[in-house]
Amino acid sequence: MTSGWKDQKKVTAEPPAPAADPSLLDRRAFLTGAVKVAGLAAAGGLSGNLLATAQAAESTSPELPPWMKIPGQPFRGYGQPAKYEEEVKRIIVQPYNGIAPGAGESMTPLHKLQGTITPNGLHYERHHSGVPDIDPARHELLIHGLVRRPLKFSVEALLRYPTVSRIYFLECSGNSFFNAAPEPPQKSCGAIHGLISCCEWTGIPLALLLDEAGLDPKGRWIVAEAGDAAAMNRSIPMEKALDDAMIALYQNGERIRPEQGYPMRLLLPGWEGNMSIKWLRRLTVTEGPVYSREETAKYTDLMPDGKARQFTFPMGVKSVITHPAAGMTMKGKGFYEISGLAWSGSGRITRVEVSADGGKSWAKAALQAPVLPLALTRFRLPWNWDGGPVLLQSRAIDEKGNVQPNRERWASQYSAGNTYHYNAIQTWSISPEGEIRNVYQ
Amino acid sequence: MTSGWKDQKKVTAEPPAPAADPSLLDRRAFLTGAVKVAGLAAAGGLSGNLLATAQAAESTSPELPPWMKIPGQPFRGYGQPAKYEEEVKRIIVQPYNGIAPGAGESMTPLHKLQGTITPNGLHYERHHSGVPDIDPARHELLIHGLVRRPLKFSVEALLRYPTVSRIYFLECSGNSFFNAAPEPPQKSCGAIHGLISCCEWTGIPLALLLDEAGLDPKGRWIVAEAGDAAAMNRSIPMEKALDDAMIALYQNGERIRPEQGYPMRLLLPGWEGNMSIKWLRRLTVTEGPVYSREETAKYTDLMPDGKARQFTFPMGVKSVITHPAAGMTMKGKGFYEISGLAWSGSGRITRVEVSADGGKSWAKAALQAPVLPLALTRFRLPWNWDGGPVLLQSRAIDEKGNVQPNRERWASQYSAGNTYHYNAIQTWSISPEGEIRNVYQ
Repeated sequence: MTSGWKDQKKVTAEPPAPAADPSLLDRRAFLTGAVKVAGLAAAGGLSGNLLATAQAAESTSPELPPWMKIPGQPFRGYGQPAKYEEEVKRIIVQPYNGIAPGAGESMTPLHKLQGTITPNGLHYERHHSGVPDIDPARHELLIHGLVRRPLKFSVEALLRYPTVSRIYFLECSGNSFFNAAPEPPQKSCGAIHGLISCCEWTGIPLALLLDEAGLDPKGRWIVAEAGDAAAMNRSIPMEKALDDAMIALYQNGERIRPEQGYPMRLLLPGWEGNMSIKWLRRLTVTEGPVYSREETAKYTDLMPDGKARQFTFPMGVKSVITHPAAGMTMKGKGFYEISGLAWSGSGRITRVEVSADGGKSWAKAALQAPVLPLALTRFRLPWNWDGGPVLLQSRAIDEKGNVQPNRERWASQYSAGNTYHYNAIQTWSISPEGEIRNVYQ
Repeated sequence: MTSGWKDQKKVTAEPPAPAADPSLLDRRAFLTGAVKVAGLAAAGGLSGNLLATAQAAESTSPELPPWMKIPGQPFRGYGQPAKYEEEVKRIIVQPYNGIAPGAGESMTPLHKLQGTITPNGLHYERHHSGVPDIDPARHELLIHGLVRRPLKFSVEALLRYPTVSRIYFLECSGNSFFNAAPEPPQKSCGAIHGLISCCEWTGIPLALLLDEAGLDPKGRWIVAEAGDAAAMNRSIPMEKALDDAMIALYQNGERIRPEQGYPMRLLLPGWEGNMSIKWLRRLTVTEGPVYSREETAKYTDLMPDGKARQFTFPMGVKSVITHPAAGMTMKGKGFYEISGLAWSGSGRITRVEVSADGGKSWAKAALQAPVLPLALTRFRLPWNWDGGPVLLQSRAIDEKGNVQPNRERWASQYSAGNTYHYNAIQTWSISPEGEIRNVYQ
């Protein structure tokens, strides 16, 4: 085994070629409103046609629809999505259901969402033994091991501590692993890449609680343990614990959800999701890592020399086009907005490029501000589909200069069979009939 | 009537006095982690005691709680809050229920939330005739009036248009009006100030759709109309429509909720909430405002000279301490984090000050980054409560130099009885017994 955390090679690629594909319009096309739009319609080949499928209307008042003739529904203490959006839900995958109840995952339906925040009800789940029903009045967090004074914290006590709020993505280290298979699976975008979500998390800096307990200088690692039936545990280097790790108590404003670790979870920004231990009950300060099941039998990377690389903590630079994407069907040629998500466990996204010709030419996408470190970044590019066959791709670059690799380059780093840290470029093939398929390029 | 949109006087105040109150600790106290904390505990009077109420523990493994002995709950397509948080819900107020079914509001429980994002289920509601049940397949948006070609857009057509995502607050122009009453109402923080929420909204720039229809130069206003039984309508100046107005289709990532206008709403960032017409069905381009019921009989400000000021669009600079705040009880003296929300309809918040002595001295609070224009900003200040009587206040200042007024200064702008655009400083009185009350100062 080799330790991968600090010696991961930077994946670089050739500088992007200029866009030669006239179907990809300038990313700034619609930013300045009406005047630019008119100019673009002429310049970009839209010839003054409507961008999408608006219809001419009589300039008279439309008839009143039935819902304007009766009073509407009453107020509710806690609101729910529209009944017409019932199919917008997490995609549940339980491959081990026969052997291990509650082991598996549910994935965020990325291709049905927009923006960068994931609503709490659709945040991806990865459990090893289901969602425990923890009574917050009876839950405690213990900090012990190599500390001057072991401490336990009730939830009520923790709710009095100083907090910070940050928008961070969380990604399972196995996200997109379906694409490591020899043949491209025909699943929706969310069913392939949906083990990633992004929320505003509010919690206590872990450094603050460790200071309360008083660190022994010999303590260089922390073993974090979950309060579920799997008692999931992982070793955390002290450097990260004292940097930006937090004990998260709130998610998008409200108390953290049961499937995200209620009443509290560890949160290690940018690092593989399984280390952000949910239902956190214990932090043991140790001299070295514990080499738990989840960092030996699992969550290691199979290297070309046959060894398993341990401790590849930060998630790679990555992007995926969520619209158009597998899971939807094109509705005729003409204008579309290409849109997707980009992220990196090493910092901010600085550039996303889009190709409609399978990587022969690239155009720069617009990044939605604010571009935050270790958070999802939404990118967009206007596009005029001529109805011909298309290979859509996106490629992300982060502030450290890491470039998202293509599939071949990604695979060359590992043995066949590695399924973790898959961050290769996704290719969506669009046929003249409007079918969108997952293909390898 | 006078038009208030452009001639509102800037409310200014004296420059803040330096903090003389040693109970308010430095806002940077916990920003750099463990080392600073130790130093602060000594310097700030905490004398090495634990910040809050952690307890000494045996350094042994705790007993397994019952929820670690059985597998947990299964995966869910759409998650819900923990059952232990059932009391975290919107506060429903229906003063007109006898006369107008579905008229009233439900308020965000600000004192039970953290961070800046409001989860969709807790976004405040203000309806004039309940929540209509609109079938998106049968809904259309009509743009007509002074345009070259009247257009209608199906929801499906709109979902193909270019979009932007922005984090914006929405505040009802009547928010906090309870505090305009002669005696301070004893309600929770959320029940007084909770007609404000903040989401990431994704939608189509309105300028783009207006350009599709082709604006007649005589068109200087737009009348926006809702598709509910109240057919709520408001006049929007063209300047705003062409600036940052959007047709919002998504809210915190997912399709907009029914109570927020499903399948679409107008969104006018920073302006009083009732103008961001929900269930939007019609935009009529006109030469002047329509002087609708909601801009004559209501949503006008009673001025000292007895006239009603119309069209006070942007919401004022404002802040409120949400913790500690009415709706909770203090749990003994010692460390607390003072935390709250600040916002302004004129841009970014640049400074928030906190007083624990009823405004005699002020300390600068830390602002959570990123500080975004027209969005909620979370502020925080560490505080050591000595158990004595306290008058807690916060005061916000925005990038235009607007300073949140005290109650007297606010009231001096209007006739008694005005209930709109209340943005005065909130005072929470804390008694030695730990009771928190709403008081006027």
